[in-house]
Amino acid sequence: MRKTLPVLALVVMAVFLTLRTSREAAAAVGDGPQFTADGKLVRPADYRRWIYVSSGLGMSYTQKPEDAQMFTNVFVKPSAYDYYLANGKWPDKTMFVLEIYGSTSKGSINRHGSYQKDFMGLDVEVKDQTRFADKWAYFNFDGVEKAASSISPSQNACWKCHEQNAAVEHSFVQFYPELLKVARAKNTIKPTVHLE
Amino acid sequence: MRKTLPVLALVVMAVFLTLRTSREAAAAVGDGPQFTADGKLVRPADYRRWIYVSSGLGMSYTQKPEDAQMFTNVFVKPSAYDYYLANGKWPDKTMFVLEIYGSTSKGSINRHGSYQKDFMGLDVEVKDQTRFADKWAYFNFDGVEKAASSISPSQNACWKCHEQNAAVEHSFVQFYPELLKVARAKNTIKPTVHLE
Repeated sequence: MRKTLPVLALVVMAVFLTLRTSREAAAAVGDGPQFTADGKLVRPADYRRWIYVSSGLGMSYTQKPEDAQMFTNVFVKPSAYDYYLANGKWPDKTMFVLEIYGSTSKGSINRHGSYQKDFMGLDVEVKDQTRFADKWAYFNFDGVEKAASSISPSQNACWKCHEQNAAVEHSFVQFYPELLKVARAKNTIKPTVHLE
Repeated sequence: MRKTLPVLALVVMAVFLTLRTSREAAAAVGDGPQFTADGKLVRPADYRRWIYVSSGLGMSYTQKPEDAQMFTNVFVKPSAYDYYLANGKWPDKTMFVLEIYGSTSKGSINRHGSYQKDFMGLDVEVKDQTRFADKWAYFNFDGVEKAASSISPSQNACWKCHEQNAAVEHSFVQFYPELLKVARAKNTIKPTVHLE
């Protein structure tokens, strides 16, 4: 009996460790952005299981409206979302996926307004303070690309506009009502930004 | 040693059973719709962590456009979504949450198009073949209501329109491009429904 108790303890410990390790592995795999050997961002595969942030239709920052009205749906990972809810800021390795759909008005029984139709691509924004000298980088994926280089130069038009106008760090939470509430509560809105 | 092997086996089994039971309990808590003692649907609390389905803006099935253009964001639980991906149909106890936001066009640097602004309420659709004689029931929640009675009578205008026009069971997947692909692949679209 003296020999079997340590054996028993070891077996129970092994069972627990195996289960814990497999859970940790599952949480770590794919939780941060993945890059290819030549530095391209691997296309986020499962973003439709992430947390939905908000949508817009035909949003344009220029004087001229867009010719085609596109829907844009924004997603972040649950881990980044939880951090944001607690802090009103984004953790390192945060990825925003902005999914683009063409819109249509008349179809089935719908007569007015717009709904989403054809998938057009993804815009992805990554915060990675180690990899990017300017912290945030921008990527575009069409319908099928498996990996994309960051838009260059590093301080490109996307980067500059987000740096100057996004309410919290490089995120336009002024267009995401649920996240805007958090930023107001945590007082993390850049003082230079116009929300209205 | 003859006595200790069965003991070992029992302990290992107990460890597994405990872990499995706790996981099952976690999956069951709040996974189906919850009702008050007097039969009202409890407001879904955490639907913004569910799976996002799609969004529309100002969708209207009548000849007259809506006066105010509202965004509608649709969510289902991960368990219902997984079942749908596998089967192209909805499991019993499925809940659809349709979240309504007012829209605005000009704010911050945005000049055209629309983004979401003020939360207006929730429309909820529940499939419960035991509780509802007509399988599907409809509920509205304003900004604060904690529980809501189903819209009556049971075959109300919502129910009739979904029964007649929704592509899959009572769900308008013709307006949800990712779910429409699944319904086409699984051949679960009602033959009487017009998709275009």
